[in-house]
Order: sequence, then structure tokens, then C-alpha cells
Amino acid sequence: MYRTHTNGELNASNINEEVTLSGWVQKVRDKGFMIWVDLRDRYGITQLIFDEERTPKAILDNAQKLGREFVIQVKGKVIERTSKNPNIPTGEIEVLVSELTVLNEALLPPFTIEDETDGGEELRMKYRYLDIRRNPVKEKLIFRSKVTQAVRNYLSKENFIEVETPYLIKSTPEGARDFVVPSRMNEGQFYALPQSPQTFKQLLMVGGLDKYFQIVKCFRDEDLRADRQPEFTQIDCEMAFVEQEDILDAFEGLTRHLLKKINSVEIEKFPRMTFEEAMKKYGNDKPDIRFGMEFGELNEVAQHKNFNVFNKAELVVGIAVPGGNSFTRKEIDKLTDWVKRPQIGALGMVYVRCNDDGTYKSSVDKFYDQEDLAKWAAITGAKAGDLICVLSGQTNKVRAQLSALRMELAERLGLRNPKEFAPLWVVDFPLLEWDEETNRYHAMHHPFTSPKPEDIKLLDTDPGKVRANAYDLVLNGNEIGGGSIRIYDKTTQSLMFDHLGFTKEEAKAQFGFLMNAFEYGAPPHGGIAFGLDRLVAILNGQETIRDYIAFPKNNSGRDVMIDAPAPIDESQLKELNLKLR
Amino acid sequence: MYRTHTNGELNASNINEEVTLSGWVQKVRDKGFMIWVDLRDRYGITQLIFDEERTPKAILDNAQKLGREFVIQVKGKVIERTSKNPNIPTGEIEVLVSELTVLNEALLPPFTIEDETDGGEELRMKYRYLDIRRNPVKEKLIFRSKVTQAVRNYLSKENFIEVETPYLIKSTPEGARDFVVPSRMNEGQFYALPQSPQTFKQLLMVGGLDKYFQIVKCFRDEDLRADRQPEFTQIDCEMAFVEQEDILDAFEGLTRHLLKKINSVEIEKFPRMTFEEAMKKYGNDKPDIRFGMEFGELNEVAQHKNFNVFNKAELVVGIAVPGGNSFTRKEIDKLTDWVKRPQIGALGMVYVRCNDDGTYKSSVDKFYDQEDLAKWAAITGAKAGDLICVLSGQTNKVRAQLSALRMELAERLGLRNPKEFAPLWVVDFPLLEWDEETNRYHAMHHPFTSPKPEDIKLLDTDPGKVRANAYDLVLNGNEIGGGSIRIYDKTTQSLMFDHLGFTKEEAKAQFGFLMNAFEYGAPPHGGIAFGLDRLVAILNGQETIRDYIAFPKNNSGRDVMIDAPAPIDESQLKELNLKLR
Repeated sequence: MYRTHTNGELNASNINEEVTLSGWVQKVRDKGFMIWVDLRDRYGITQLIFDEERTPKAILDNAQKLGREFVIQVKGKVIERTSKNPNIPTGEIEVLVSELTVLNEALLPPFTIEDETDGGEELRMKYRYLDIRRNPVKEKLIFRSKVTQAVRNYLSKENFIEVETPYLIKSTPEGARDFVVPSRMNEGQFYALPQSPQTFKQLLMVGGLDKYFQIVKCFRDEDLRADRQPEFTQIDCEMAFVEQEDILDAFEGLTRHLLKKINSVEIEKFPRMTFEEAMKKYGNDKPDIRFGMEFGELNEVAQHKNFNVFNKAELVVGIAVPGGNSFTRKEIDKLTDWVKRPQIGALGMVYVRCNDDGTYKSSVDKFYDQEDLAKWAAITGAKAGDLICVLSGQTNKVRAQLSALRMELAERLGLRNPKEFAPLWVVDFPLLEWDEETNRYHAMHHPFTSPKPEDIKLLDTDPGKVRANAYDLVLNGNEIGGGSIRIYDKTTQSLMFDHLGFTKEEAKAQFGFLMNAFEYGAPPHGGIAFGLDRLVAILNGQETIRDYIAFPKNNSGRDVMIDAPAPIDESQLKELNLKLR
Repeated sequence: MYRTHTNGELNASNINEEVTLSGWVQKVRDKGFMIWVDLRDRYGITQLIFDEERTPKAILDNAQKLGREFVIQVKGKVIERTSKNPNIPTGEIEVLVSELTVLNEALLPPFTIEDETDGGEELRMKYRYLDIRRNPVKEKLIFRSKVTQAVRNYLSKENFIEVETPYLIKSTPEGARDFVVPSRMNEGQFYALPQSPQTFKQLLMVGGLDKYFQIVKCFRDEDLRADRQPEFTQIDCEMAFVEQEDILDAFEGLTRHLLKKINSVEIEKFPRMTFEEAMKKYGNDKPDIRFGMEFGELNEVAQHKNFNVFNKAELVVGIAVPGGNSFTRKEIDKLTDWVKRPQIGALGMVYVRCNDDGTYKSSVDKFYDQEDLAKWAAITGAKAGDLICVLSGQTNKVRAQLSALRMELAERLGLRNPKEFAPLWVVDFPLLEWDEETNRYHAMHHPFTSPKPEDIKLLDTDPGKVRANAYDLVLNGNEIGGGSIRIYDKTTQSLMFDHLGFTKEEAKAQFGFLMNAFEYGAPPHGGIAFGLDRLVAILNGQETIRDYIAFPKNNSGRDVMIDAPAPIDESQLKELNLKLR
């Protein structure tokens, strides 16, 4: 037996017990006549003591040779410490060692295995197995495990069945690019890895399973943006005989449970907002509502006043920055530069200082008097001491720009409190979105998302205005889940395929097996999928997804640690009936 | 809202309530003036009633048009049934329908959606989403979900952390064939899909996670035997600072929990048997010990008696078939034919009838007298009324043949009771096995399996005799799990690579990243993996794995329902920088 206790377990109540411990050498303090060793494992640190008087010479000598990260086993007696450490659970005791076995030696690690390490990200990623030994990293993996377990327990209690859907499926041309997998048994043919189990979960609804969930890996062969992985994990859910309200209810329940169980935060009812309202108020379909700074549209009060920039603009819109009047001129200029960066793309920024005496001082005083500016303040909700930032231009672009500015300012002002949780349902997403490249409408979610019945008549006249039974769950400015009520009847389905520009043959080739299934009694159904990697990060008050993945890939899709992907050899390709071009 | 209750919910306590129900039309009984409809969902069946007197004419007319598997919604009042059905929970009531909505029509299903269906397997697989509506199939998927949930709850409570390991990894040449996945971002390079997360879980142990588990898909691009899938699910586990005993303890605990929770069977301590003993007693490393019929080796008493067949044989071995003396001569001849089939491969079978009067009658009376045969009976444990079946030949072959006969007879005699559970640890597996094809020893498990320290000296003199710290968990004659204590020190590891015929360079190319990790303080560790698909089937008293997979593949690896794998087109291949030969 390697241990009687873990290294996080012993305390004053164990004094005088003979124990066996195993773990890694965290630190050695050698005073010659006395040596202390911090012994570490997943559960904590226990202090070992060796001394001239009480420890046999041979053992003391061996202890002197211990290096960082050596794996050792010791036997000894639990004794009271002279200088106690109230910061750790084992801080009242130490173990006087009577036997020492080196289980494995260790090379000097390339960075320190401490909470604060001296290793840069790349080095830590290369030696991920050493990075995982560090508390902050280890705790994140444990946190993730806790969250998934809580999700499963909640959904199981709510009668959801976890069903595993296949990973080797048929490639579907719609959406992102599939990873393909050549089949050896079926020459010249390929499986694809699923981008999501969408069609399978719909088939399970046709199959009468009623409530399905799965925590499942999904795959996208896409150019990786920062913090986006080619394989990612989804909490995938579907329910039959439901309307949108039922789904929102069910998954508000799940999220409420997680916030309570994981974060000890109780939130009674999640607010809701239409997509249109979110865009108008926050310029964003996933607004962070932990703080205000809502958009104020200023067209009525700011146009027709000889300021041509505004007069030409489709939208003039501003936000009030709380306490922003304290910004120096230089700081405001820097902010202006910030919105003009190519990533944001604003042409400039107009500002209004709201002075403590109730007067205003703006960068456009030439065109606007105090009365005008007072109206701007009223509309943006600015109070004395605030700063109003105003952008103008084409509606969609200027909203995106101001949204970016709003988030940046909130970050700088410390308004994005990681301990605060502000969930929000965004509903009534548009059904279709215009694709500039192909010059046609695409399904915003997927072709089985149902339109709102009252909007169907707009399909012919104003397709962009048709709203869908589609919803996102937003948490602290991040989309953590999204879904829709599906089309399940033939009439609506044909109508949709027509409007998406599919011929009957194309629709059949791509979605034939699902359409066939729908002929045999499909129930009304809908669902939602959560991005687990992001959800976990956000519940932990952070937003770097990669930290929550045990073995992430880097931005070129390469494994951070092992050499994958790697070349395969000619004979393997031959067996697969493939050739590199 | 589509329903106020499910179809398994209403009973006498709901009488007089107004309810809304939704579901599938299971059956319509139309007596003209009165129509009964069985409405089905996942939860049960509720009887609906429409009648001339109480139901509006228009609704009655619509009810008459309902077909099997139509999806409908009804509103109505719960009333007491005239003729009650005590076999179903809703059997005391029916719902008098006041509103009927057809949510979706259905084509006539290609087979009946009943517990006993008229559809053959192929047809049911093609329409898997309809097959899933049938209770026996649906219940199997629910059962699987229950098992996985129980596994997770148990292991989480025992401090195991569930960690997701990557699916896009590096191909390892050892073992079965990998599925490969061309990478678009890294031209000419390939990922592989994991055959198991073996190396990753070992890295997690080096990383100090201490106790890991994962329920995870694994992939093998192999020719499919019956009931073997190219993608399958494993309960994968690993622990640090453990010896074999700790692992057996921990996973005996898990299995005991499952048997109790799922099957209400309590088993105190699982028996253990060495590999050698299992082969000697049952001719098999996964013996079904729900019944006896242990092998009796007869060389000493059956050889040197002028019966040349036995005299030439390496092993003469028999089993006593309980009550087998009642077999007719014809039945025994058929049994002889059975063992002579090419799949079994015996050259013949000798039998001894154990008469009720204590005398024996054998097929080799010419060579053996009553006293000889009495010794056979004593060794095989045959009693009056039994039949002794004896095979002979090369040890390994004859053991396999007699094992097959033993299982076949047990099946025929009804000794394999699906409600009985007989777990068994088989331990001390050989470390190496001889591979005829490559003319060298291979690791029986994998190259990181540790040898028993006391056997290491045999590596040079008698490698086949070296035992490993490797174990299987057997349940009712099926291997449900297997694992080993791993090598974690450099010395043993080099020794093993030498004996497996790896050069230093080869070892580095294949296992370099794991060997590197082991330089930085690897703890002693070991683990186990359970085949979930099989485990679930066996816990449910069955052995057809495919039934427990929502969307299985057929024997040529093709999806039973959707057309996968499928050809991909030239442009996709081009993008992947590949060409079909």
C-alpha cells in the first residue's frame, strides 16, 4: 500500500499516529541538522521533518539528495508542529519520517510547479502534464468535472435520457467544414465527424424518446481563431411536445441549478429580450447586462444641426460612461484612437463631458448648444460626472463599434465583476440572414428552425424580417447556449427549402433521411445546445476556454504536447486507397 | 402547451380532471358509435374514448380518420373505465375527448410498433427511429442511460475526476488499425482517432490528477466481426499510487454498486482466479462460473491404455454434463458432430454414460474397464445420471474446444441464468504472447504493462512464463473490464522495450512523449477500462451489444440508417490535398 492518507488529510486529531504518505517533493529546506520537505499530491501538502536527533543517519542522508518533483513514499509519526501554518488544513502537524523510499526521480522541471509559475504559456503547454500539477490548472479541471456532473444529475432527475449518437456519420455540406475520415472497409468512401448531433437528436424525437441529452464532442475543420478548438464539447438537448416556453423553462431550470450548486448564486427569473431590442440597446445579440451603459439613439436630437457627419449617418448612437468626466483629454483621445483601430473601424468619436455643475462640454460645441446636449444626456441616461461617447454611421456597423467600446470601457471601469452572474434569454432571432458572398438568404441557425407562424406571410415580401422560434441563453456577455423549435410538418418544411433556394433534389440529397423520418409521425420538438468549454469558463468567472481543456490544441490545430497531426506513411495511404496530390 | 400530463401518469385519483395529452396513436378500435384510441408516448399508454352521445359529431368523424402512428393532441375529461386493465398504470381510467388536433400524419409504418413486431432486423435497423418507439428497444436505451449515470455518480463520490481527452490525436502504429483524419490546416498531415485514451490517462497520472475516469468513444478501423462496432464506448479509469490490490478493490466496489443499484443483486466479495487456473479449469480466460462443469484432466488415468488417440495427445480432458445420461445416442452423435464442426475443430469426442446403478458405459469400452471409468468420473466430478464428454489433443486447442462445448451444453441445459450474476477477477495474465506471424513476442496488453517483480528474471530464460500485473473482470462468461499496473520507472521500461524487440529509436518514435513525461516524476499508477456496450448488455441479462446502441453500424461498418460512409467529391479531396488512387 502506497499511502494510508492523502497529503490534504492529516490534522491535530492524527497526532501520534503512524502513517504512510506518497507524493511529489514540492520543496526541500535543508538546515543540515534538520530538513523539512513539503510533500504534495492532488489533495494538499504535508510537511515532513527529518532531524539529526530523531532520524537515522542513512535516511537523513537520502533526504538531503531529494530534488524537486521527486516521487517519494515515507512512513513516520504525526507530530505537532512548532510553527503552525493556519493557511493550510495540515498546518498544525508534520510527519517525523522513519522510512523514506524514492519511487521515482525527476529531472528539474522546465518551470516552477507553483501557483505562480515562471513558465510562459508555450512552455507550460508543451509540458502540459507538469502544468496540470499546479493548483490553479488542476482546480480548473476538477471544476469542469463538477459542472458536468451537476448537469447530468439535474437533467437525469428531470427525466432526460443520455443517448450516445455516432461519431462516424455522413458528411453534410451545409455549415462549417467537416473533418472527413476515409473508410478502409468501403473503398473510396468517407465518414465525417459530426459538427453537432443535430439530425440524430431530431431522429430520437421522432423515435419517441421525449427528452434527450448528451455531453458530446463536436468537430469543425475551421481556421482556428484564438480560443477556438477544432474539437469542442456540447451539452446537447432536445425535447418533444414542447413550445419555446417549455424549453426556456427547462433550461432556465438547469442554469439556475448550476448557478446555485456551483456558484451559490440564486437567481429567480431570467430576464428576456428580443434580438431586436438587444441590438438596439446593446448593439449586440449577447449583451452583458451586469452593467448599464445602454445605447441612446440620438438621430432625432442630433441630426439636422449642420453637423454633416451625423446628418449623413443612418444611426447616431451614444452611451453614458459612469464617472467618465474624470477622463483626461489624453485619455479621451486614446479612446478615440481605440475605436478607430481597424479591428473596430469607427471613423471617429464624439464626446460630451457632463460637468458636475450641470453644464456640458462637447467635442462638437460648434454645432450643438447646452439644450441639445441636455437632450443627449437625457436619452443616454448620463448624469453629472459622466462622459457621453457618440458614434455614427451605418446601423449594423455603428452598433457593433459602440458595443465593442461599451465592453472595453466596462472592462476598464471594473464593471464586469466575475463574481456576479447576469443570465439573459435573447429570443425572436431572425430566421434568415443575407449572405453577401452567395447573394442569397441562409438559415441563421439551420434549415429546420421554425419561423414564427405570424411571420410566415412575410417570407415572400420581406424575408429578412421573419422571426424564428430561436433563442440564445446569454451569461455575462457570452452566448452559452442556443437553440430553436424545429419544423416538423411537411408544408412549412417545403416552404423553407424553397426560400433557402434548395431544389427538391438538393433538399433530398442533403436531408433525405431526416425528411423520410418526418413522414412517419414526427412530434413537435425543439432543443438547445450549450458550449460546455465556455460555460465552464464563465461559471468560474473567466473567459479563456483553453484553460478548461486538459489537452488543448494550439491555433494551428496542433496538439500542444504530442506531435499531432503527423505525416502518415505511403503504405497507410495505399491501404486507404489515397494518394497525396 | 402540448400536454398537462404524460400518457403514463393518469389514474383513478385524476377522475373528473380536465387534461391535455399528446402522443402517437397506437391503436384505434372503431365500433362506429364508439371509438377507443390508445395514445402512446415514452411514459405509457392512455385510453381515449369518443362516443356518439358525448362527443361532438365533427370530432368523432375526425377520430375515425386517425391512422396508426398519427401524432395527436387531445383535451378531455378523465373518467372511470367500464372495463379496467390492471396490467397498466393508467388502466382504471380513460379520457373522454372534447377536442382533437392532428399534429402530424404518418405513413403506415413498415412494421408494427408493438413489443412483438413483425419486422425483421434489417428493416427495423433501416427505420431505427421507428424501432426505438417500441418498448423493448426504448427501454434498452433508457437502461444504458441509467447505468452510465450510476457509474458516474459512484466514481464521482469516490473522488474520481472525469476528464475529457482529445479525439484528434497522433496515430500510434501498435495495436489495431487507426482511423485517420486528414488535416486541412496542416497539409499532408493526419490525425488519428483514439483506440483508447491510454497514453492520455497515463499523462494525467504524471500530472498528479490521482484518480481519473471518463466514459469515452474509442475507434478501431478493423474488419467487423458480428456484434463489434468500429466505434465503441469505454469506461476508462486510472489511479496513481496504487498496487493491483487497490485497483481490484476500487472497481470491485464500482461493479458491486452497479449490481446492487441496477440489478438489486448483492455480492459480497468477488472470487479471484489466476489466468493459469482459469485455462486449466475452464479452458478459457473469461469463464462463466454461474455453473460448474469444471475440466478434469485425465492424462494420468486415460493414457498408456492402448487407446492411441489419447496416448498421442498432449492433453486428455473431460467435463461432466449434469443429467447428460438422459441424452439419446442420436443426441450424443449430434454433439460429436457439433465439436467436429470447423469452427470448433475437434477430431472426435469420447463419452462415458454414468448409469443410475453406478456402472459406466463408454464409447471406448474396448480400452477402459469400469475401474478406469470410475477414475474419470471421480476426476471430472461426474455423478450417476451424468454424461462425461472427453476431448484430446494439443493443450491450447483442446482447451478451447472443450470450453466451447461446455458453454454450448450450459446454454442448452439452461444453466446460463440471465438473472444470476457471477463476477470473477482473472489475474496474473502472461506479460507476453508469442506472435506466429512476426515470430516474436508481443505485449499481451500494451508495452507499459508491468511484469511481476519476482518474474523479471524469467524474461531472458522463459519469456512466455513471465506474469504481468494485469487483470480482467469477468461477468457471466464475458470480459467486461481489463487493465494493468503500468511500468513507471526507466529501468524496467528499457528492459521491456528490449524484450519486445524495439530499438531505442523505435521506442522513442512511438512512445517518445510518454517516455519524456516519465522523466519528470511519474508516480506508480495503474488502471482499468470497461467495455460499456457489453457491460450494459450483460447487466440487462443479454449479450447482443448492438441493441444497446442508439444508431449502430452494420457488419460492413455502414450506418444502419443514413448512408455513411459516402463518397466525397473531387473538390473536397483537393482541398484536403488528397487523391483517390
